[in-house]
This record gives sequence, C-alpha cells and structure tokens, in this order.
Amino acid sequence: MKKENIGSVKVIPLGGLEQIGMNITAIEYDDSIIVVDCGLSFPEEDMLGIDLIIPDVTYLKENIDKVKGFVITHGHEDHIGAIPYVLKDINVPVYATRLTMGLIESKLKEHNMTREVKRKVVKYGQSVTLGDFRVEFVRTNHSIADAAALAIFSPAGIIFHTGDFKVDYTPVNGEAIDLQRLGELGKKGVLAVMCDSTNALRPGFTMSERTVGSTFDKIFNDNKNSRIIIATFASNVDRVQQIINSAVKYGRKVCVEGRSMVNIIEVAEELEYLHIPDGTLIETENMKNYTPEQIVLITTGSQGESMAALSRMAANLHRKVSIQPGDCVVFSSTPIPGNEKSVAKVINELGMKGAKVIFQDTHVSGHACQEEIKLIYSLLKPKYAIPVHGEYRHLVGQKEVVMSLGYDKENVIIMKSGDVLELSDEKAEVVGHVQTGDILVDGLGVGDVGNIVLRDRQNLAENGIIIVVLTLEKHSGQLVAGPDIVTRGFVYVREAEELLDEAKAIVTDSVYRCLDKNITDWSKIKNIIKDDLSEYLWKKMKRNPVILPIIMEAQL
Amino acid sequence: MKKENIGSVKVIPLGGLEQIGMNITAIEYDDSIIVVDCGLSFPEEDMLGIDLIIPDVTYLKENIDKVKGFVITHGHEDHIGAIPYVLKDINVPVYATRLTMGLIESKLKEHNMTREVKRKVVKYGQSVTLGDFRVEFVRTNHSIADAAALAIFSPAGIIFHTGDFKVDYTPVNGEAIDLQRLGELGKKGVLAVMCDSTNALRPGFTMSERTVGSTFDKIFNDNKNSRIIIATFASNVDRVQQIINSAVKYGRKVCVEGRSMVNIIEVAEELEYLHIPDGTLIETENMKNYTPEQIVLITTGSQGESMAALSRMAANLHRKVSIQPGDCVVFSSTPIPGNEKSVAKVINELGMKGAKVIFQDTHVSGHACQEEIKLIYSLLKPKYAIPVHGEYRHLVGQKEVVMSLGYDKENVIIMKSGDVLELSDEKAEVVGHVQTGDILVDGLGVGDVGNIVLRDRQNLAENGIIIVVLTLEKHSGQLVAGPDIVTRGFVYVREAEELLDEAKAIVTDSVYRCLDKNITDWSKIKNIIKDDLSEYLWKKMKRNPVILPIIMEAQL
Repeated sequence: MKKENIGSVKVIPLGGLEQIGMNITAIEYDDSIIVVDCGLSFPEEDMLGIDLIIPDVTYLKENIDKVKGFVITHGHEDHIGAIPYVLKDINVPVYATRLTMGLIESKLKEHNMTREVKRKVVKYGQSVTLGDFRVEFVRTNHSIADAAALAIFSPAGIIFHTGDFKVDYTPVNGEAIDLQRLGELGKKGVLAVMCDSTNALRPGFTMSERTVGSTFDKIFNDNKNSRIIIATFASNVDRVQQIINSAVKYGRKVCVEGRSMVNIIEVAEELEYLHIPDGTLIETENMKNYTPEQIVLITTGSQGESMAALSRMAANLHRKVSIQPGDCVVFSSTPIPGNEKSVAKVINELGMKGAKVIFQDTHVSGHACQEEIKLIYSLLKPKYAIPVHGEYRHLVGQKEVVMSLGYDKENVIIMKSGDVLELSDEKAEVVGHVQTGDILVDGLGVGDVGNIVLRDRQNLAENGIIIVVLTLEKHSGQLVAGPDIVTRGFVYVREAEELLDEAKAIVTDSVYRCLDKNITDWSKIKNIIKDDLSEYLWKKMKRNPVILPIIMEAQL
Repeated sequence: MKKENIGSVKVIPLGGLEQIGMNITAIEYDDSIIVVDCGLSFPEEDMLGIDLIIPDVTYLKENIDKVKGFVITHGHEDHIGAIPYVLKDINVPVYATRLTMGLIESKLKEHNMTREVKRKVVKYGQSVTLGDFRVEFVRTNHSIADAAALAIFSPAGIIFHTGDFKVDYTPVNGEAIDLQRLGELGKKGVLAVMCDSTNALRPGFTMSERTVGSTFDKIFNDNKNSRIIIATFASNVDRVQQIINSAVKYGRKVCVEGRSMVNIIEVAEELEYLHIPDGTLIETENMKNYTPEQIVLITTGSQGESMAALSRMAANLHRKVSIQPGDCVVFSSTPIPGNEKSVAKVINELGMKGAKVIFQDTHVSGHACQEEIKLIYSLLKPKYAIPVHGEYRHLVGQKEVVMSLGYDKENVIIMKSGDVLELSDEKAEVVGHVQTGDILVDGLGVGDVGNIVLRDRQNLAENGIIIVVLTLEKHSGQLVAGPDIVTRGFVYVREAEELLDEAKAIVTDSVYRCLDKNITDWSKIKNIIKDDLSEYLWKKMKRNPVILPIIMEAQL
C-alpha cells in the first residue's frame, strides 16, 4: 500500500536551465533545504576576459539555517565546479560517491579548503538523512564513472533526480544503471522526476561505451606502423581505460599529456577506477627510447581548445611532442556546439603536418536519447515530469517525449532558474521566484566584473581607445600641459601620424574654446572633447573608439 | 586530333586556400594575367572590431601591365566582395554573367565606382579574349543563379575552373549544368581542372534545390492556421522563388525583412531572375491588414547573426515584427561552422515566445559531393587536378576522391595561397611563391589595423586598461599633477575603491622613487610604474590589465 504524502515540497533550480552548465537545485520542505549539485559554467564569447561563472546563491545565504547539505550526482565541472566558491559562504556537508568525492577533493585542495569542508562518501543504494529528507544514491551510467541518480524522500513524496545519465547495459567498469530499483521506486509511487534533457531531441538509444573499445581495437590493428595519438575528455575514465586496454593488447606504451588528463588519471588510478598494468605508462620524456609504433599518446584537446595539449602539438607549440608525418590522430569526442571551428582548425593543422586524422565511430554520448527517457518514465511513472539539464529547446523536446507516453501537458513542467515550484499530490504550481544569476569570476576576483565592465571591454575590443590628457592649473584654470593623444588598439600609429595630428588639432581647438568661454566644469569640457573628436573620427573613418578625456590639476 | 600545347601556364592562388572565403586566383601566360574571382572573407573571432578581410594583391600591382581582366564565376561575397577595394588599384574590365554583374554593380554603386569600372556581361557559351587567353563561361548550378564555370584556353592548354557548383538535373530556374560541353572539352583534352572541394568529404550526391520546394509545400499545408516565417540566405534567389511559389499556391501574401534580402530581391526581380505575381508582395507595415494565416515572411538571420532581422525578432528588438505564439518559423539553411551556438540561441528564444521551429529537410547544399566531383573529372579527364575552395582537410578529401578514379598522387596538386604552379604537358611544379595575405578592413580604414593593433584589442578585451597619468614640470622635472589612475574594463570602480587607492599609492611611490633618484628618462619611469603596478595587481588579483603610463610635460 502506498504511504500517504503529507504537505508539499518545493523545487527551486538556482541555475542551469537557461544555459548549459551551472547545475544547482534547492529542494525545500518546511525547515529543511538540500542542494542537488553545485556546478559552474564557462563564459560566452561576449564575456571578455572572464574565466568562469558561478551561480548566485543569495537564496541559500538568506536561508542558511535551513540548508542541510549538498548532494552531488557526478564529478563533471558543471555539477561540482562551484563547490569551493559556494562553500566559502555556505559551509555544510557534501555527499557524493567515491570518484566524485575524489574530484571534489582535488578542487578543495586547490582552494586550501580540505580541512574546513565536511564530506561523506556514499555508496550506491545507501541513503543519507538530511533534515526532513532522506536521499538515496542510485547507480546510473554516464560519461564519467560513479554517476548517481538521487531518490529524494520527503514527507510530501519522492522526487527522483536522474543527474546526467544514459542507459548502458554493458558498461566498461561497474554495472548497468539500477533499473530494478527504479521499478521498485515506481511501484512505491514517485511524485516527480527531474530528468536529463541533453539528448531529448535525438531519437533512439545512446550506444554503449563499450562500442568505442571495439573501434579503438580496429584503429590499433589498422595502424600498426604509426604512432597513435588519441584526444578525449579528461574526465571520461572509462574511455581512457579502453585506450589503455587496446594499448596493452597491441603492445604499446602509454604517454599522457595535458594537465587535467594527468590529474584525473592520478585520482582515478589511486581510487582504482582505472587499472593500468605495471610498466604500461611511460613519461613523455622517455618516448624517444621507443619507436613510433610502440607508443600511444593520450591527450587533452579534443575540443580544439587553443591552450590544450593537442592544439599546441598541432600548432608546433608543444614543448615535448611534435606531430610527425604518418602519425595517426584520433578525436574520441564530438565537438560541443561552439567548438566546431576550432576543432576543424586543429584537424587542418594536423593534416598539413602529414598526420592522418580519424573521428568516426570513436565517441558515444553520455546522455540518454528519447527511448531511454521513455524507459525511465515508464519505470518510475511519476505524477509530474520536470525536464532539466538542457537548453529550452531540449526541455521542450523532453516534454514532447513525455507527452507521447500519455502525460497531460499540465503535468510536465518547464521551469526557469529561480522559479519556486510547489509540488504536492494535488497540484504543481510555480508559487514564486527567487534571485538567481551569473557571478563572473576573473582571476581571483569573484563578482567584481559586471555588465558595465564587460560593456567597456567589448567597446575596447571592437574599436580600441583614444585617451586625451591635459593638465590645467588649479587657480588660474590655464592649460599647462597637453592636450596629448595616446591610443591603444585603434590604428597602427606609424601609418596614421597625419590622422592623429589632425585629431590633436581638433581637441586642442575644443579645449581652447572651453577656456576662452571660461567653462570650468570639467565634465563639460570632457564632453565637448568627446563630441568633437568622435564626430571627426566618424566622418573620417566610420569608427567609434572609446574616447577617454583625462584632465589633471596642477598645483604650482 | 588534339591541338598541340605550347609552353607552360602559371596558376597562382592569391587567397582562399588556407581559409574559407577570399577566392582569387591569377592565371598567367607570358605577358597576360587574368584573375578568376575577387572575394572577401569575414573576420575570425580573434580579429576584434574588423568588418571584413580582403586579399593582398601586391603581385597584381607589381604586374599591373599584364593584368587583362577579372572573370567572375558567381555573385557570392567570397567571390565578388573585394572587387571595389581591389579595383581601386587595378582598374581592368570585369566579366561576369548577368545576375552576377547585377550584384557587382550594386557593390560598385555603394563605393561610387560605377562610372570608372568597365564591365561586360557574358552569356553561357560565350567567350572573351583577354591577352593570350580565351575564357568561355560554362553553365553550372549553385545556390545562387547564373553561376558559371570557366574554360580558360591558353596556348599551354585548357584550364577548367568549376567555380562553386553542384550538379542539379532539375534546377528551379534555368537549366542543368552543361555536362555535354564538359564532355566535349574533355575530348579536346584538358590540362588541369580546379574544382570546388567544399563537400569533398561527403559521400553521395547533393539533392536538387527542387526538393526543398516540396518541403515548403508540405509546411504550408501542415500549418494552415499559423503565420509562417522563413529565414534563408539572401542570395539564394531560387530558394526565395520557391517560397513565393508556395505562398501563391496557398494564397498567402509575402513580406520581406532584412536589408540584404530586400536588396537582392530587388536586383533579381529587375533582372527577371525572380518572378513575383502582382499583388503578392506587401509592405511589412501592412501586415496588420491580414490575419496571420494569410502571411509568409521571408527574412535574413538563418545563421543566428545577432544583427539580422530574425534574431532581432526573436530577441524582441525588431521594430516592425514581433514573434507571436503559434508562429511557425522555418530555418531554410544549415548553420555554417562557427554559427551553431548563435542559431541554437535564436531557436531557444523563438520557442520561449511560443513559436514552432522547423529545420528539417528545408535546405540543400550548393556544393558538389563526392559522386558529383567524380562525374566532373570523368567528363573532363584532365592531366592535373587542383582541388580548390575549402579548408585543407577538404582539399585532401578531393585528392582522395580523384585518386580513387585512378589518378597518380603526383598529378593531384594541393596548393597554398601564393604558390606559383607551372603547368605544362610535361610537368606540374611549384616554381615560386608570391606575397599574399589578409588586409583588414575596419570602417573606412583599409589595412591600417594590423597585428599590433589586434593584439592590443585582445589585451584590452581580456583585462581592460589602467591608465596612469602624471605631469612633470619641464625644467625642474618636478611632479606638478598626478599620478592619477583611470580604468576602463578592469573592475567595477565603486566596488574596488580600496584597491584603486592602494594602486595609486603604489604608483605615487614609484614616481617619487624615480624623481628622488633623478631619473629623467621618461621611458624608464614608465617602465618602473608598469612593473610595480603589474606586480601588485597580479599578486592581489591574478590579473594582467594593460597598463598605460602617460607622462605630460608642463611648461610654466
């Protein structure tokens, strides 16, 4: 018999719904809040100079007494990356599976926070009690090992959060997603499912990670006389395992390049998520002791990131490895939207150096396609469906998939970040909205770069800057130095001497006009300089540089 | 009997081989040079503030007496866009088919150059004699009407340049590519083929433009109760024709939005490449007199370009059109590599406004796939194959296709921009290299923005700028004003007052240290300021803004 549900539970996504990344969701019942994931996101093209973006967690700060802990689904940056930043303000315990916790720990280490943050490793099937909630970690499959879904038990009912997942019946390490437990939970009665929408527009079923292993074997077999270089995502430990398996099978030594790849392999090997036979790994420095056909190199850079190891090799900028004619380079990845051009650039550069490039059948997605989404909903049969993790079009894609199973439109809820969704047996309703947003991180500065600064950077980037400096005497108001003109990013000065001379004449004229009229308000003088100069430059060149007049006061 | 070939002819690509766009190739025999196409290319992401890129034609300027004319294959920007710029220096006649010339003329009009440039419209099958060359314009198919291949007859043999092409047996307007003439030329004997490589990595055959028409009919039939908005490439006149055909068939009025769309429709209708029944076109202002289901709107913005009409509609920034729930928006295009993210953004915004978005089976490519490339080579059977128009990987793709027909590796030549390839019956050999490169156009400035300026813009964009100004008295060298600190794009000033105060203290200290030591060399003082301040900022914030010290001289 189903247990009766009491009251209502609130679901409050604090990020991750309008853009990929920055996954963080508060679940609230009475005086208890738990937070699912705490990810960062990477800057858009127009966020000049920004390193990363973390979520605005004002809502959690304001309700800090209620917050019982963070429960983390898996170790990708968009789910764990903001932990060190957010936990500086909201220091509550963190719960995760073993590899996920290993990756969180190396993050905390970087920020010197290992001592102050309480952590607990949770096994699949185990639960933790956090205030009014009990959270069970359920085994799933994904492109990183140790991924978990969360069955969140509240007095108002069970919320099932899939995390990022796929259904892999034949995973490389560990076991398949715990479909039996999903069936069992479904029988008990599930209030709502929050399900990964990344591939909701793709029909069919995502292939097993194991299929990539067969492709690797074929590549090793077909290219016995070449050095093999394979680029993939650092965090895909199973992918790395399969490369190592093929290497061992075909008698090759393995080198690893790229900081994040080296880091993760270290963590994964230590925690025994990666099994590397002794004598397989060699230092890149020792590659010279082997012939090319005795080597496979695993590297970062599968997305064409300009600073990653493979891109530096392709551009001849890598300190230790240079591409040789005959090298066989494998992209074990597909370009993430936005990276297509940089990947193509690296492929062209590799080709020009005589390398053969392979990118077919060397990657599978870590996310569920439409048939897998249907499977999850058919096992759990929740009252409400809440598509998460995707752009708007992906959320709508999942909505259509769920409705094809017979769900009513009203029971599939597309949320926005900050929406407060109240769920009970009776109804699902957005009852409010809390503050959310992007906090920009630039260097060590968190949040000190905002829209004004970004707009300035954009202007500077488009057109450069012209600085007009002059010094006025304090008491007389007389011009004692300048006006001088200095530019950066505007024109190549040696070729534009005449133009800059003319510009100087214009502003000199403006300044004297002001002084003659006894204008002493500096902001007025600055505006006149700006207007005159920008009119001249637009007429002459159709350009709009940032014009920055600086007036100094001399005390004689 | 084949005519005997005499001497050798040179092929010199002056752009277009390392990157998409900027197609321009010099063909030289003895004292005659002809130039095939004269295109521009669009800036890469890191070319901040640059509007467009034109080729460096130093080689043509140095040999201006030899240059007999420009022969243009078709009217796309990457083949005609640099004409107004290049012809300012090299004013020789331009030859093209009718629509192509119409588009060239509107370019010349913008630059006030219609009077000074000699132009001649050439029909398919006609030839023009230019010095030692005779150039025949051969009918092909492409995503713009009136595309031509060029059969270039020289004493050393025939060079056949395909231009951009596909094989469309059932084109919307006009006839299919003149395969018979290709066969005839092949029988005569062709020295070299220069062939479009864009789709050389794609197996099979590109679908006929006409297939898109059937999709449009189906969309119009399935969405009888919605306003239909179709975004496509402005230059694809046949695509526009098919939209108009469907509109007429289903009794809808047609509005056109987007400057380039309006322009090209005007030119194409005037030259009768587009047939619009009277009363079909209405002004967007008059849309309000019709119900949504009586309207189809043709618009630019199929690539998610932020300033294009569709993107502005999606973002609620369009003056005349706003997206309504129930609108049916069709993307008749595929994203050009690099535009995937912006297109997805527009799709999401449209979805959030309640529009239905369609992008399946609504586009076909304008370029030949592998089977078409094989057809061309099988008809022409040239001695040499020169893949053109594509990134390096596409050129290599064509090389492999051609070699699959039995060609020797040595007879398929992959060139670089600037290579001088000498071709004769006996051999094909790169005998030299001429100057080529990118000339950056920013506003009215051509070539005045170079690498230094771009690097400055990049630095400004990443980190912003800190300007340190101070005034020294000329004779005494005493500080009479400043040092003051002004920043742009660095931090939000109101939140960083303390930091900026500290920074000011640092530079004041630096300046007094210099003055106390009687350092009078300004560049030395500037360097000390720079070093001290940048050390402080890096330590404090891990940031590297541009630091620009300005010293003024006061004469009292």
